[in-house]
Amino acid sequence: MKSKYKVLIYNHIPEYVDRYERLVREVRQDLQLLVCKNRDQIETFIDEADIIFSAHTFPGELVAKARNLKWIQSTSAGVENFARSNLLPPNVVLTKIRGVFGPIMSEYVVGYILAITQSMKKTFLNKERKRWEPFLVDSIRSKTVGVMGLGSVGAHIAYQVHLMGTVVIGLDEQEKRLPYVSKEYSPTEIEEFLGRSDFVVVTVPLTDANEGVLGEREFAMMKESAYLINVSRGPLVQEDALLKALKQGSIAGAVLDVFHEEPLPRDHPLWDLDNVIITPHISGPSIPEDIAKIFIENLERFEEGKKLEGVVDHEKEY
Amino acid sequence: MKSKYKVLIYNHIPEYVDRYERLVREVRQDLQLLVCKNRDQIETFIDEADIIFSAHTFPGELVAKARNLKWIQSTSAGVENFARSNLLPPNVVLTKIRGVFGPIMSEYVVGYILAITQSMKKTFLNKERKRWEPFLVDSIRSKTVGVMGLGSVGAHIAYQVHLMGTVVIGLDEQEKRLPYVSKEYSPTEIEEFLGRSDFVVVTVPLTDANEGVLGEREFAMMKESAYLINVSRGPLVQEDALLKALKQGSIAGAVLDVFHEEPLPRDHPLWDLDNVIITPHISGPSIPEDIAKIFIENLERFEEGKKLEGVVDHEKEY
Repeated sequence: MKSKYKVLIYNHIPEYVDRYERLVREVRQDLQLLVCKNRDQIETFIDEADIIFSAHTFPGELVAKARNLKWIQSTSAGVENFARSNLLPPNVVLTKIRGVFGPIMSEYVVGYILAITQSMKKTFLNKERKRWEPFLVDSIRSKTVGVMGLGSVGAHIAYQVHLMGTVVIGLDEQEKRLPYVSKEYSPTEIEEFLGRSDFVVVTVPLTDANEGVLGEREFAMMKESAYLINVSRGPLVQEDALLKALKQGSIAGAVLDVFHEEPLPRDHPLWDLDNVIITPHISGPSIPEDIAKIFIENLERFEEGKKLEGVVDHEKEY
Repeated sequence: MKSKYKVLIYNHIPEYVDRYERLVREVRQDLQLLVCKNRDQIETFIDEADIIFSAHTFPGELVAKARNLKWIQSTSAGVENFARSNLLPPNVVLTKIRGVFGPIMSEYVVGYILAITQSMKKTFLNKERKRWEPFLVDSIRSKTVGVMGLGSVGAHIAYQVHLMGTVVIGLDEQEKRLPYVSKEYSPTEIEEFLGRSDFVVVTVPLTDANEGVLGEREFAMMKESAYLINVSRGPLVQEDALLKALKQGSIAGAVLDVFHEEPLPRDHPLWDLDNVIITPHISGPSIPEDIAKIFIENLERFEEGKKLEGVVDHEKEY
């Protein structure tokens, strides 16, 4: 028997679309799948879709054309493409992925903090030059790491950094009382939070309210020896202000996995800065095998009229 | 009142000799210090020395000329220069540094494992080339890390790697029953230990018995996908066999902080291998401020006839 629901599948990586299609079909032969690999295909099929199962790169403005739409399952933790700017009709449920990305993103954050304290860039460069140049390594235990946003991902990063013997402080709208966070600051206390942090890790969701939350004023609050690590979304940071802070040395450097424009254009000035580490949005991979499983489980809840996992608050946009 | 003891201070870094001299004098003006920055000075003063306070680079064969010698305090955890080959008269006490290097060396090991799972070398290279090239990061949690030698340093490395969510196995002559090591192997079980490990971390002390303990036979036991990490002493590894294994791909790569000859000569073939990370013996720094404190405390015990901290077993050589 055919399911009554039509599911639009979209991802910006065509191979991932194929994998998602295969993974869903394997367990749910009854579903009607609208398989989309580009914007044209989305525009063709959106009218029929009851459900959207898509990456964060789905063009949110097209949701308005989906007259049958009941539910969107994002493959990401960040859902700004769907949730921002009142794009979403009130009756459409949006769900995000929760609890999957924390552990692997913690490895990225711990890894790049250690890359900095251990001066790994110098090590790789000296290897190319066959240069033996002893230096004193720094210790992560002597640092204070500030995690901006103590949601599912931020909390796990805080936990894993704490296990390295490091002092962790946090900033969040809500008090989370996490035992591994030595002090939690509210957004009004951002000056003290930034002033104490040797590494500022950005994990807050991108919403209308916090776009550009880190700008010239905030970089001035940071230590000159401090590093910014952004693993959330590029537009949380004002890129011009960041470039200026990095060039003037008002902060020591940055580790950036996300950008205003992705892929980061070849002529972007960030590529030229020696105190920046750039990774191509890889810190929290959505692995189709993991994500499809979560979608299938949520689909069963949806069909049974149960509460879904990871429901996004339309007001808060996350 | 002058102390009756003459203390010979030696380090291969002249600036460290000055720092050790200053640190010791600050608290013990009464001591007679024989300050040595090279072999000639050691040969001049060794005859008078009651106590040697020195780095692991002290030429051990000169100990035979120290007719008044009662005690040697090494500034290192590794004491092979003094302890090997029956260099030490039975009445001379040798003490090593214990409990200092584990935490910082754990940061090195966790850091370089993450550098490999996160493909950081590719990231640094792509930055230079302004290349946006997404890839799937690997996870340390999917690995098994084998720690060879569960002494003070090895145990701490095992603990810290375990806290990353990784399975840790160990190899040691003695059963240590460490709760964070999932299985401890004896040296006779080395084949199973090496065959299971995705990373083999060498932390055993260098003794006459285990010089060259990792050779062609052992590299053949390792997985082709496995990495060797040596943070102990170069001569534990047969360098020719390692070069062959790295070139032939019988192991995936190596992270080396220690070598047969240090500094590693510019024409050494290890510099040319792409699958090797080379650091200049920096993973466990002896920081004079920390080490001098331990010496002073042991000196008080020595003067009071108490048992010293970190006494080395002459038979075992560690």
